[in-house]
This record gives sequence, structure tokens and C-alpha cells, in this order.
Amino acid sequence: MRWVRYEREGGVRFGVVEGDAVAEVAGLPFDDPPRTGRSVPLASVKLLPPVIPPTFYAAGINYRQHVLNAQAKGLATQIPKQADIGYRAVNALVGPGDAIVIPRGSTGKIEFEGELVVVIGRKAKHLSAQDALSCVFGYTIGNDISERTWQRGDRTFWRGKNADTFKPMGPWIETDIDLDKLVTTVRLNDKEVSRFKTNDMIFGIAHWISTMTQYLTLWPGDVIWMGTDDPTLEMVAGDTVEVAIEGIGALSNPVVGE
Amino acid sequence: MRWVRYEREGGVRFGVVEGDAVAEVAGLPFDDPPRTGRSVPLASVKLLPPVIPPTFYAAGINYRQHVLNAQAKGLATQIPKQADIGYRAVNALVGPGDAIVIPRGSTGKIEFEGELVVVIGRKAKHLSAQDALSCVFGYTIGNDISERTWQRGDRTFWRGKNADTFKPMGPWIETDIDLDKLVTTVRLNDKEVSRFKTNDMIFGIAHWISTMTQYLTLWPGDVIWMGTDDPTLEMVAGDTVEVAIEGIGALSNPVVGE
Repeated sequence: MRWVRYEREGGVRFGVVEGDAVAEVAGLPFDDPPRTGRSVPLASVKLLPPVIPPTFYAAGINYRQHVLNAQAKGLATQIPKQADIGYRAVNALVGPGDAIVIPRGSTGKIEFEGELVVVIGRKAKHLSAQDALSCVFGYTIGNDISERTWQRGDRTFWRGKNADTFKPMGPWIETDIDLDKLVTTVRLNDKEVSRFKTNDMIFGIAHWISTMTQYLTLWPGDVIWMGTDDPTLEMVAGDTVEVAIEGIGALSNPVVGE
Repeated sequence: MRWVRYEREGGVRFGVVEGDAVAEVAGLPFDDPPRTGRSVPLASVKLLPPVIPPTFYAAGINYRQHVLNAQAKGLATQIPKQADIGYRAVNALVGPGDAIVIPRGSTGKIEFEGELVVVIGRKAKHLSAQDALSCVFGYTIGNDISERTWQRGDRTFWRGKNADTFKPMGPWIETDIDLDKLVTTVRLNDKEVSRFKTNDMIFGIAHWISTMTQYLTLWPGDVIWMGTDDPTLEMVAGDTVEVAIEGIGALSNPVVGE
């Protein structure tokens, strides 16, 4: 099933995509919500980020080639020894088609990276690796925008990773996935610039979830962005960037200056 | 006014404290909600963290003596040159009276720190320092728990700062505050262990908000934890820790092992 979150008549709704239509539901996707009986054309609704997470987790460095290429550029990036999860901020989320706005004052390269996003469906603590995927509701797509000067110069990742609009997510949550078949494709102005096996991670999703839940509770709607593989490329105002994962969909966003 | 968030009849409510009673409202404190007409004794309700923030911000290092004492211990801590905001995680929040649980596997010192918490009341972007406090709804209290081995050894602050129960917050949001008169007092088992002028910060609240909102949007309910001054002390299972700020209230939590 494909779950969307969208605007209709000034309100925010969830629904299930069925062909070219959206069947509206009453409640959150994670609560097995009843259908309202209303159906609207998919093309007629403004899609929003498919969920607003209570906590927004990010794996960060999670693909081998990404580390090797960073090292080749002279960066101190290392293959991580353990799955230490990071955080991103809800203010930075935008939906499919929304503009990525390069903030005034940016002097650095702005890069974009395609990521698989895990969406949690139920409260989970102390899961074994074997049981870890049982708390997953589905998957969506993220485009991880970074301002590299701020990322290196600031004490935290606040402007470099979490400026408004720096975390496009969508277009929907897909619940039926074969992780090992997924391929991530990243496009800049319709030209493919990156392609990698989505599940070829340093630490797999089950390992991340099991490790995290030894110390923290995952809640319905939490998202975990799983990192990206190389190459990553620069974007500038006027570009359009797209992340597609076969079996999920495509997330496309224009880039503008503030 | 003092705003509380609490459990009643299996649901979560907001209300205004009036003497020994809570006047229930319908809606969020930030939306000028109407009163329902129901009133319950304050002592009869289970207080929750007074807000669940969309984004949970933390200033981190924000008091001079805290830096000097860290340096005296041989740590690399520096007086920050700019107001780079950090992030904490919603899973870690607990309310007044809730247990702080030291996770299994902790080998490090666990320390606690009293912090003023700013609660945002309206959407804000590009505020000048002069206008910055106009988006503040009120203030509450936070107790910032850290597991120092994980804080130093992990690549991120996930276990060291954001394990479940590591961020007690409450007991309520106070809207009528004279910042310059506030004094923070921290107690371990009823013995005072720290006392500092709450508003004696390296970067003040208006400077933080103005700086942040040049790049990000603050939303109603967002919280900013403002950091702590020294001394900070260790706590162990069996202790009770309390942070009090005159004019706001006191936040007390017992410590237990997992």
C-alpha cells in the first residue's frame, strides 16, 4: 500500500493511493484507520511530507564508497565502528515538488544526496536484530541537502544540515518492499548522476533498529534516514534534483535562492 | 499563567493552574484555547512534560564557568564563538516525578544539569534580536542527563544525551517571568549542589532566537534548552535530583537502574 499525506480544504489528511485516486482515511496510517468513503484524484491534491516524525533520526555515514571517496578528497571520514544514530530537525522537512531554498548568506557548496527513509509503525524497545523489522511500517525517500561550509565550520549541523527546506521527503510511504531489490537513482536536471544498490549498507536497517532500541524507544511516525552512497554532487539555484527508488517512487524538487 | 499538560481519563489535556486547581482548556496553550469549564485538583493529576516539541533544540555550552571548569579538568571545551544550536530527542522526555532510568550497559558517570527551557508560542522566521522574545510563549525547567562515557565515545550524542528518560522537563510552562531575576538551584537528595544566575549566559535568549531564525522556522511548541552553569555532579540509582528556578517552580525526579 502507498500512504500519502496531503492538503485538502485547508486541512491535513492521510489516504491510500489506488491507481490515480486517493482514498481518504480518518486517523493516522499506523492506527489501521477506517476509510471515510471520500476519494479524490491523486493529481488534484498537494502532497506533503508523508509523516511528521516525533523524532527524526539519520544514520549519516552508512555506505562504504561514500567513506572511501571522502578520504580520497582528504576528509577525515572513517568507516564507523558502531551504529551511532544522529538527528535532524522537523523544520527542515518539505514535500515533493516543494522548493529547496538556499539561504541568504550561504557561501559553501550545496550538495544533495538520495536516501532510503524507514518509517516506524509501532512503539518498540529492546528489539533483537531478528525482530527489528517488525516495527517498520514502510519506506519513503529523502533528499539530504547539505551546505558544506556550514557543515564543516559550525559546532553542530544546524545550518549545514537543518536549514528550512533542506530535507525534502516523499512522495509517499510504500509498505510493500523487497529491500534487496531496491536501487536508488539520483538525477540533476533529468540527468542521472548517481545509482547504487539501496540496501548495500555498512550497517543494515535491522542492526540500526536493534542497536537504537536497546537505549531508546521508537514511536509510530519516527523516521530513520539511512544515508547515501557516492557520488554526491553540487546543485545551484535553477536546478531540479530528483531521488528515485524503484518500487517506491520519485521525489523531485526545484532549487531556488532565498 | 502556569500551563500544565496532564493525563485525565486516559487522555492528554492542557490546563491553567489556579491555586490548587487546574482549569482544563480545549486545545493547545499557543492557540488561546477556550476553557472547558472543568476543573480538577492539581494534586490529583499526573503531570506530563508540559509540551512535546516539534523540534527539541539545545544550546549546549552557554555559561562561562562551565567552560572554564571543563578546561580545568583537561577537556577541550572552548568558549563558543557563535550561537550554533544543537538538537535533542523527544523520546528522552519525561515529566516531573518520573524516574530517570540508567540504561543497562552504562559504564560511565551519569551527571545532571539544571537548565532554563524556552517554549516557543508562534511561528517565527528572520526575527531581529530586538523582536526575538516576541515569539516566546513561556518558560519551563529541564534536567539535562548525560552519560559521560557514551558522550565522549560515540560519534553522536544519541546514548550519551538522548537515552529514554534522560530529559526530564516540567513541571509547567510559566508565562510571567522576569529573566534577570531568575536563579537556578540544583539539589541532590535535598542538598543544594549548584546555584547560578539563570540569565547569565554567554549568548542570551534573544541572540539565540534571532540567530536561529535567520535559517530556520521556529514553530509553536518548539523548546530551546539554554544550557547549564557549573558545578555539575554525578548521580546514581537511589538518588533524587531536583532543579528549581524561582518564579517557575521545581522539577524533581528519582533515579533508578534499568
